[in-house]
Amino acid sequence: MVTRTVDLRSDTVTKPTETMRVAMSNAEVDDDVLGRDPSCFRLEKEMAKITGKEAGLFVPSGTMGNLISVLVHCDIRGSEVILGDNSHIHIYENGGIATIGGVHPRTVRNNEDGTMDIHLIEAAIRDPMGELVFPTTRLICLENSHGNTGGRCLSVEYTDRVGEVAKKHGLKLHIDGARIFNASVALGVSVDRLVRAADSVSVCLSKGLGAPVGSVIVGSNSFITKARRLRKTLGGGMRQVGILCAAALVALQENVEKLESDHKKARFLADGLNEIKGLRVNTSSVETNMVYIEIEESLQTTAAKLSKDLGEYGILLMPISSSRLRVVLHYQISDSDVQFVLSRFQHVVGGGPYEKGN
Amino acid sequence: MVTRTVDLRSDTVTKPTETMRVAMSNAEVDDDVLGRDPSCFRLEKEMAKITGKEAGLFVPSGTMGNLISVLVHCDIRGSEVILGDNSHIHIYENGGIATIGGVHPRTVRNNEDGTMDIHLIEAAIRDPMGELVFPTTRLICLENSHGNTGGRCLSVEYTDRVGEVAKKHGLKLHIDGARIFNASVALGVSVDRLVRAADSVSVCLSKGLGAPVGSVIVGSNSFITKARRLRKTLGGGMRQVGILCAAALVALQENVEKLESDHKKARFLADGLNEIKGLRVNTSSVETNMVYIEIEESLQTTAAKLSKDLGEYGILLMPISSSRLRVVLHYQISDSDVQFVLSRFQHVVGGGPYEKGN
Amino acid sequence: MVTRTVDLRSDTVTKPTETMRVAMSNAEVDDDVLGRDPSCFRLEKEMAKITGKEAGLFVPSGTMGNLISVLVHCDIRGSEVILGDNSHIHIYENGGIATIGGVHPRTVRNNEDGTMDIHLIEAAIRDPMGELVFPTTRLICLENSHGNTGGRCLSVEYTDRVGEVAKKHGLKLHIDGARIFNASVALGVSVDRLVRAADSVSVCLSKGLGAPVGSVIVGSNSFITKARRLRKTLGGGMRQVGILCAAALVALQENVEKLESDHKKARFLADGLNEIKGLRVNTSSVETNMVYIEIEESLQTTAAKLSKDLGEYGILLMPISSSRLRVVLHYQISDSDVQFVLSRFQHVVGGGPYEKGN
Amino acid sequence: MVTRTVDLRSDTVTKPTETMRVAMSNAEVDDDVLGRDPSCFRLEKEMAKITGKEAGLFVPSGTMGNLISVLVHCDIRGSEVILGDNSHIHIYENGGIATIGGVHPRTVRNNEDGTMDIHLIEAAIRDPMGELVFPTTRLICLENSHGNTGGRCLSVEYTDRVGEVAKKHGLKLHIDGARIFNASVALGVSVDRLVRAADSVSVCLSKGLGAPVGSVIVGSNSFITKARRLRKTLGGGMRQVGILCAAALVALQENVEKLESDHKKARFLADGLNEIKGLRVNTSSVETNMVYIEIEESLQTTAAKLSKDLGEYGILLMPISSSRLRVVLHYQISDSDVQFVLSRFQHVVGGGPYEKGN
Repeated sequence: MVTRTVDLRSDTVTKPTETMRVAMSNAEVDDDVLGRDPSCFRLEKEMAKITGKEAGLFVPSGTMGNLISVLVHCDIRGSEVILGDNSHIHIYENGGIATIGGVHPRTVRNNEDGTMDIHLIEAAIRDPMGELVFPTTRLICLENSHGNTGGRCLSVEYTDRVGEVAKKHGLKLHIDGARIFNASVALGVSVDRLVRAADSVSVCLSKGLGAPVGSVIVGSNSFITKARRLRKTLGGGMRQVGILCAAALVALQENVEKLESDHKKARFLADGLNEIKGLRVNTSSVETNMVYIEIEESLQTTAAKLSKDLGEYGILLMPISSSRLRVVLHYQISDSDVQFVLSRFQHVVGGGPYEKGN
Repeated sequence: MVTRTVDLRSDTVTKPTETMRVAMSNAEVDDDVLGRDPSCFRLEKEMAKITGKEAGLFVPSGTMGNLISVLVHCDIRGSEVILGDNSHIHIYENGGIATIGGVHPRTVRNNEDGTMDIHLIEAAIRDPMGELVFPTTRLICLENSHGNTGGRCLSVEYTDRVGEVAKKHGLKLHIDGARIFNASVALGVSVDRLVRAADSVSVCLSKGLGAPVGSVIVGSNSFITKARRLRKTLGGGMRQVGILCAAALVALQENVEKLESDHKKARFLADGLNEIKGLRVNTSSVETNMVYIEIEESLQTTAAKLSKDLGEYGILLMPISSSRLRVVLHYQISDSDVQFVLSRFQHVVGGGPYEKGN
Repeated sequence: MVTRTVDLRSDTVTKPTETMRVAMSNAEVDDDVLGRDPSCFRLEKEMAKITGKEAGLFVPSGTMGNLISVLVHCDIRGSEVILGDNSHIHIYENGGIATIGGVHPRTVRNNEDGTMDIHLIEAAIRDPMGELVFPTTRLICLENSHGNTGGRCLSVEYTDRVGEVAKKHGLKLHIDGARIFNASVALGVSVDRLVRAADSVSVCLSKGLGAPVGSVIVGSNSFITKARRLRKTLGGGMRQVGILCAAALVALQENVEKLESDHKKARFLADGLNEIKGLRVNTSSVETNMVYIEIEESLQTTAAKLSKDLGEYGILLMPISSSRLRVVLHYQISDSDVQFVLSRFQHVVGGGPYEKGN
Repeated sequence: MVTRTVDLRSDTVTKPTETMRVAMSNAEVDDDVLGRDPSCFRLEKEMAKITGKEAGLFVPSGTMGNLISVLVHCDIRGSEVILGDNSHIHIYENGGIATIGGVHPRTVRNNEDGTMDIHLIEAAIRDPMGELVFPTTRLICLENSHGNTGGRCLSVEYTDRVGEVAKKHGLKLHIDGARIFNASVALGVSVDRLVRAADSVSVCLSKGLGAPVGSVIVGSNSFITKARRLRKTLGGGMRQVGILCAAALVALQENVEKLESDHKKARFLADGLNEIKGLRVNTSSVETNMVYIEIEESLQTTAAKLSKDLGEYGILLMPISSSRLRVVLHYQISDSDVQFVLSRFQHVVGGGPYEKGN
């Protein structure tokens, strides 16, 4: 019988804390579609302040945050967006920007650190003179931290340089900042400074910050006005949504400071796993709360198999490929959980028998 | 100073009750995107049972419920949907089925009772033999109760006949049942019987039922499987969404029985308003919780002006046109509120001075 | 054995004349995608002059002409177009503006003369203040002459008034002028005057004008620049297209003056058919080259059956519904053909036996 | 004064021959939208035979041919296509598959020979189990010969292997065969063998084959039925289109055999240019009728400048980047033209003065 569950599949799995539940229970709410829900208004204003943008808009998910942002910047038929070939928007959002929005994605290779080479970005921008056969480049998207490369952070310098390229060519810059607070904490740079070059940012509340639901997109007032309309079109306008926003405000107050601890646990776990024979972690790439584990051939097992075996001990992870596992830390994983995970990995990889009663 | 607010703009304005707040506070939740949130699962199952369909899916709004339903039934490029020219989908949802989904809307005239003539529906169905220049008809949409004609109800007989037409031509039938519980109560017919002919139904939880957020769409298992994917594409997949579902479950348990009272109050209000000189209400059309008020020319005022004047007394209504006001009853409007509204209407229309202290 | 074919299905069936064939054979051409084909350039310039617009663009079909026009005027996601519920764009173009272009069609009832009531058009325009739930109205479409109501003509006065409504609300006006030359001739008004209020017009060359292929859309220089790009996107950019344009230039020179004769023949045929017992033609609606024939119940036959019977004599017509036939005149139908058609109609409707050798 | 023009910008610039002009002048035609134009029918049947497919469809351009093919294979919303990051569809067709068709492009790196690594193709195919966040892979596109890598040919073996991958995963395979005849001639493999693995092929008539306008797409009967309808939607249905098809039939009869000569001239030109100091041609990559010329830094000039200088002598080329020129041979370029081009290149690159009277 599994008596303990350590869910490392994602930082989206956190359960609302007691404080959040109290906040939701007491939340002041109103119909946010007809007017303005006061709790939602406070959250949007707070996020705008934190990110240094004019206004914010609460949306049900990070996917909708990115979708709306790309579609608002690319509101004219025939638009193209430049984005990383390993970015969340390109890989994990159902291709919605094209299939729902008719925006043409032009991918540039993501490096191992989540960046795209600046000269490749610039080369991908279409010459407006050649427009008879070219879609019109209107947007560049970055992702910070970059999930698919293990939560690597884009520096301020890099972001600013991409912002300059965008400005030079009359393009907009959107940052998928689902985990921008992780990047901010890891880099020791304030969020507003980190996204200064961006015209819009999508920030997730239900990942490391631990709120139950939602993201906020931020940008200029005119961007948010258009975004609000598109949110309604997509069906993301919600009524007494202040319930969720009240929890998100608690998350912003209480959980940002816990991210540093998540990162430490990630590094500790990475170091520990790396010492297990048959596993390999590029520890230098563990910059935030993610650990990617390579399973060496010598183990003669697959990520799926290993994942299943660990599941027997209540440890949940996500196989990314046949030889790769993803682990994501969050504030509901304790130091003791990390120790437990290491010991079970050791046991399972070492070929030990299933132990009851854990 | 306004000391009392009577918000009659919509039945979406209700605030969560104490029971709902407790339920949200205690809700058992999980990541509904990675797996299944237990409270969400219960709600979806319950709604499937009530409507007599195989499965349900929670969505953030009625607009998304309709959008997903239309797009799933019309998943092949070049599809056409037949729907009322005065339906919510056609008028109030940003044209999303076309602008986001590329589905061609073919409208049929809505009668004053919310129906479309059956022979006009049938005439609008495209001949598959003529398909070289025709989009392919795949879906018929009904709306029950029908908001834009004052909350009129479609009978079982009518719905079944449209269902037969759909079946005969190999089409699907979707019912925008945002207020299907109102129709069920008013007609004295169970919801499952009322929507038996439909392949999908979108049911709103945050209108008369009073839940803070959300709708549930129901249909066959394969419909819901496709709908779940599209929900993710649109960004409607939410994490610990059980918070909202717990409140919705309370709404289903406690508030369905209150709808009959809303309808009575609507009729009472309609009768009262109709007796005020200068106002006219077609009382026979008040079948559920809506009242449409015509302002006669003799009053020499506009709906906007009248609405503003009543706003001074804390009475909020929605002008629909220059000479028409909409009033929607819900369970947070008391009998005393209705009396108050009647007296203030009488006062304002009669040209009385603004009275302080109400 | 059928020794004579009288093809009245459409005015699109005309075969190129000898002059056109010579012109095509001698046409000066170049790559119209890389630069400018001289014959195409001449045609576009000529059509711009005739219609009083700045520039023109050759397209492979009237459908593409309308599609490009609507999409250029509605180039921002979330646009709505107001058009007749019986218009060619809405009924016969596969719903392409929605299914390919994502433009939301808002239909207004077409009267029997092809007009839409001005006040209904104006009522259909969305209030920009309500935009959170409304698509944005950007365009009104007219059709002149109006095919589906029998080739009825919109007057200059009517067109100008719609143009004023469009201007007042900041909308564009597109005229589907597939048969604008027929309207011009019938009304005795020059084409440029007739379309003065329009921002764009699509003119067909392969209908009454008799060119083998193509339409020209006209409008401002900036409209045509955008249209050229969209034509490339749709795949309507053609290489040595001057071949087709050379024939079209002949059509413009030689065939406009023949339209009056087509109209006379249509009226003659209409009068003759109307005298046949069991057939009914609203002769007052025969304004151009089309005749709609109602089959009275007394005949106890269908349009399809009658069409088939006449086909035995080489007479080709188009059944529009079970009791309605469409006849379209063009310059390759002679007076003798008309006489022949009348006599065969008389014979077939009168129940005469099939006569060989006609 | 330029007395001689040598147009090497593309093989689309050829002018119709006398034989073609006669054929167009005499072409038997009919309304191809209402029924079947006999010349068009013959061409479609001929192309189907050559390519070994069931049926063909004439379209106005290669862009429409590819657009229709991709959209027919990806007719369900949420589809993804795998294609080369340097392919014509991805780079030069306005992103139409996404912006018009809502199909999500997933690019795989094109190697210098126009192939994509098979294992990368396979890795890009989405796991149907992960479909909640993934679009559905439905199609792989190849291009043969591959224009953007200099007209390189894909072998039968490679094509067959990609076909096997497609089949294994239940995907369709489309070949952009704009220049498939060039590939066939260069490889010494019949066209039908070369495209045997493909579900659809788009073949251009107005490139090396020299017809004035058009492409033919081929595939199964059911594919062509759907394609015909979509052609109508896009506005590619044309009336007496047999005019153009008659010329295309001549092109098929007379010009296929001339392609070998084009290839020889290309190699001769490549060798000659490669000997000019400051220019560099990868002669081993000249497999068909294209030559890509690299301008070495030592020349201290740009492709645009060099192109302009050569233009003074009537030599037209296409700059591809700041240091790269594209030359395309076709049957209206004579041996003497090639000699002339080489001499003028030598002169201009060598810094000689402008010579009059050429």
